[in-house]
Amino acid sequence: MGEKLKQFRELCGEIHDLKIAAAVLHWDQQVNMPPGGAPARAQQVATLNQLGHGMLISEKFGAALEAAGEEVASLDPDSDDARMVKRTLRDYKIAVKVPNEWVREFGLTTTLAFQNWHEARAASSFKDFAEMLEKIVNLRRQYSEFFAPYDHVYDPQLDFFEPGMKTAEVKAVFEKLRPQQVALVHDIVERGKPVDDAILHQKFSEKKQWDFGEEVVAKIGYDFERGRQDKAAHPFTISFHPHDVRITTRVNPQFLPTAFFGTMHEAGHAMYEQGVDVSLARTALAEGTSYGVHESQSRLFENLIGRSKPFWKAYYPKLQKAFSKQIGSVSLDDFYRAINKVEPSYIRVEADEATYNLHIMLRFDLETALIKGDLAVVDLPDAWNQKIEEYLGLEPPDDANGVLQDVHWSGGYLGYFPTYSLGNLMASQLWEKIEEDMPDIDAQIEKKKFGDLLAWLRENVHRHGAKFYPQELLKRVTGSELDPEPYMRYLRRKYSEIYAL
Amino acid sequence: MGEKLKQFRELCGEIHDLKIAAAVLHWDQQVNMPPGGAPARAQQVATLNQLGHGMLISEKFGAALEAAGEEVASLDPDSDDARMVKRTLRDYKIAVKVPNEWVREFGLTTTLAFQNWHEARAASSFKDFAEMLEKIVNLRRQYSEFFAPYDHVYDPQLDFFEPGMKTAEVKAVFEKLRPQQVALVHDIVERGKPVDDAILHQKFSEKKQWDFGEEVVAKIGYDFERGRQDKAAHPFTISFHPHDVRITTRVNPQFLPTAFFGTMHEAGHAMYEQGVDVSLARTALAEGTSYGVHESQSRLFENLIGRSKPFWKAYYPKLQKAFSKQIGSVSLDDFYRAINKVEPSYIRVEADEATYNLHIMLRFDLETALIKGDLAVVDLPDAWNQKIEEYLGLEPPDDANGVLQDVHWSGGYLGYFPTYSLGNLMASQLWEKIEEDMPDIDAQIEKKKFGDLLAWLRENVHRHGAKFYPQELLKRVTGSELDPEPYMRYLRRKYSEIYAL
Repeated sequence: MGEKLKQFRELCGEIHDLKIAAAVLHWDQQVNMPPGGAPARAQQVATLNQLGHGMLISEKFGAALEAAGEEVASLDPDSDDARMVKRTLRDYKIAVKVPNEWVREFGLTTTLAFQNWHEARAASSFKDFAEMLEKIVNLRRQYSEFFAPYDHVYDPQLDFFEPGMKTAEVKAVFEKLRPQQVALVHDIVERGKPVDDAILHQKFSEKKQWDFGEEVVAKIGYDFERGRQDKAAHPFTISFHPHDVRITTRVNPQFLPTAFFGTMHEAGHAMYEQGVDVSLARTALAEGTSYGVHESQSRLFENLIGRSKPFWKAYYPKLQKAFSKQIGSVSLDDFYRAINKVEPSYIRVEADEATYNLHIMLRFDLETALIKGDLAVVDLPDAWNQKIEEYLGLEPPDDANGVLQDVHWSGGYLGYFPTYSLGNLMASQLWEKIEEDMPDIDAQIEKKKFGDLLAWLRENVHRHGAKFYPQELLKRVTGSELDPEPYMRYLRRKYSEIYAL
Repeated sequence: MGEKLKQFRELCGEIHDLKIAAAVLHWDQQVNMPPGGAPARAQQVATLNQLGHGMLISEKFGAALEAAGEEVASLDPDSDDARMVKRTLRDYKIAVKVPNEWVREFGLTTTLAFQNWHEARAASSFKDFAEMLEKIVNLRRQYSEFFAPYDHVYDPQLDFFEPGMKTAEVKAVFEKLRPQQVALVHDIVERGKPVDDAILHQKFSEKKQWDFGEEVVAKIGYDFERGRQDKAAHPFTISFHPHDVRITTRVNPQFLPTAFFGTMHEAGHAMYEQGVDVSLARTALAEGTSYGVHESQSRLFENLIGRSKPFWKAYYPKLQKAFSKQIGSVSLDDFYRAINKVEPSYIRVEADEATYNLHIMLRFDLETALIKGDLAVVDLPDAWNQKIEEYLGLEPPDDANGVLQDVHWSGGYLGYFPTYSLGNLMASQLWEKIEEDMPDIDAQIEKKKFGDLLAWLRENVHRHGAKFYPQELLKRVTGSELDPEPYMRYLRRKYSEIYAL
């Protein structure tokens, strides 16, 4: 490595250290911090972020980046170093366009907004949150303006979470997907053989649920020597280094799926981070490449594996043994159908695979309209209620179970929701490729053999970290762009059997 | 507050935020971090420390400090703001004298030395550690030279942990103390009525030990709403803010005192930090004023209260109930004598109150000789063994149980050990004043009433944080300078009764 590149990597490393320190503080706040610590913690995190941003946009860093760029110009453009400079340049170009004052105001507003949203949701009163949301939408619109000209004013929102993705592409994909998903859900509701999931609503020992989940994800490939699992109210995965990637979950003692599928979901995220090549550590490439690709990994383990028949052929006897009183006499088939029950509902985080994307499309429609100025914040509840009727056939609920249900907008996360659906689609695209490369994958899973699968994911996805942009990675691995068809094939095959359609 | 002072406090706040972020990373490493995380964590902490040091010695900070100094010149010199500027000036003057290269080399050396010491101790081989220790002693001697001229080359070592304290003062105090403590221990060993502590060496449920300790310290005044207790191999207390002060402990399932007195000790430290006035947060005053004063608080709760008769009159029935099989038929008196057994031993951390300071004096003698150049590192084991025979009448042990037993030197902490003894002495000085102000303190403790005591400590010690220098604080509260007599009175009274001298 040349001297310029070495100096540049050291500067990147320092910025990365600050980012990770803030991440540790965040994890601690969610998992351990006594309630009294919150205000001081907010200041500590603000200082770390401010310093990190300051270092990134400094002249010193700009010059080092330029020098490194000259040095890597002679390298293979797909070499780690060339890609590292390229990805850092992207981060730099975004950071320098956003004024420090905006960053400060946005941070302050969203800190207040979180508390405000929390109270408004408890009171189920959107009007208590409307003023704050108006501010946030205005700030996000300002953010888009920093990146003018754009094809769509929502593009910079989306690009923040899913580098390179355009509003028009998401719209095109969703327009293909929506009618098919609506039709499928309609079929299931109207003429499917009913599924009863009462067996899942019993009392299940919290410790046994916890232990079962940990045993499974350890077997699948989440390395507890380089990670740990803790409880958190809002579960998440966080990486401080490929050798320290932590997951969190919550346990519902009255509903079996919450903890287990939560742990599987987070372990999917965590294996991605644990699989990033350590040579990329302390650089901009030392993490998953996008929220969408990340979600493809979590959904793959939560749903494509975790809610599949082969998986439960392997693990149902063990689960029955742990909960013999509750499910000892329930057949594998009844259990499998129960955990895959489809039921249109108000709440996104409780939605099944068949309806989940419809919740996302609704939010995408509303977010793009808000940012574009086609929808006023004051009219948001009506628009929400109208959409949920249109997409899911549900009567408009109250605000708490409707427009106020998600935390994202209070944090200023516009552009985030679509990545959940992109992850679902990419998971199915990857899975079709996995089935092609490993025709006996179902048989392997039935034998609790996950080594080949993990090796495949490591080789094709994990090790690269953020080296390739998401759609570039997808194309390298599957040979095609983002495509909703594999996902629809998966849903149709699965639910045709379960609901005897 | 004037504008200059406000700007200055904001800069202090940012430096403080970095320090606290490093503290959170340290706590996480000791309590939660999976083993794989260590190398990355070391880099993160190094970056935070380097940035904080850089900000402290920057021209910008120097100018702000000067401007703030002019602004507070017209204030009461004992006002919080004037004192805050004064204490920060002290930190600044120390920081600017220490070159960045030294900081980097010292950090690197001690990181390697910790691992080296760990292995050398496991092999009980001092010669494996000698080269590294030589380096550390040389670095510490260099450190002293940055502060020349000095009265004694050890002064800057001591001053780092105990601001304002001089080697000559410590020497004078220890010279008064040593013959008295040696004589007392001699009396106990030669003609004391023997104490049997076999009852403490039984199997005790870890959970019950844990719960008992938490119940007691919560009652005494450690606020779990602003703190928490976790397990750690090397217990410590850490403050991120007065509203987030955490303790750690370890549990020995075969020896009852370890966990309980550990929890009491750490809770003593923690109540000090929880009691710092919140208006001092994010400044140089937002912590205990010195290691010695800190130790006075931990020893006060661990020993003066925790190993006292009134305390166990209150809590022994509850402890007996928790461990009825083990101590249900043991009298309060026998239990009280067992937890106060005096026995010269090789290991400092296991030493009783009568012998503890002798372990410290031994280390103080050796450290001063090392720094002065009167003792070569290669001769250290012999000097150690000679001293332990002289002070404690013990045959020279092996290296692991002798010169290699403590972690401190591998971390470069020369000057730290004396603060343990200063804490013991100050605890007794404070206690005599407490008995004067609250003549019924024993009766209160017997009734499990700790409110008045905590209020007294809050008012006289805790709330000030680092506002007053340690000896200044001691004089304000007790009316006298550091004085070994109260401690000797305490020891003589206590052990005369226990050992029927």
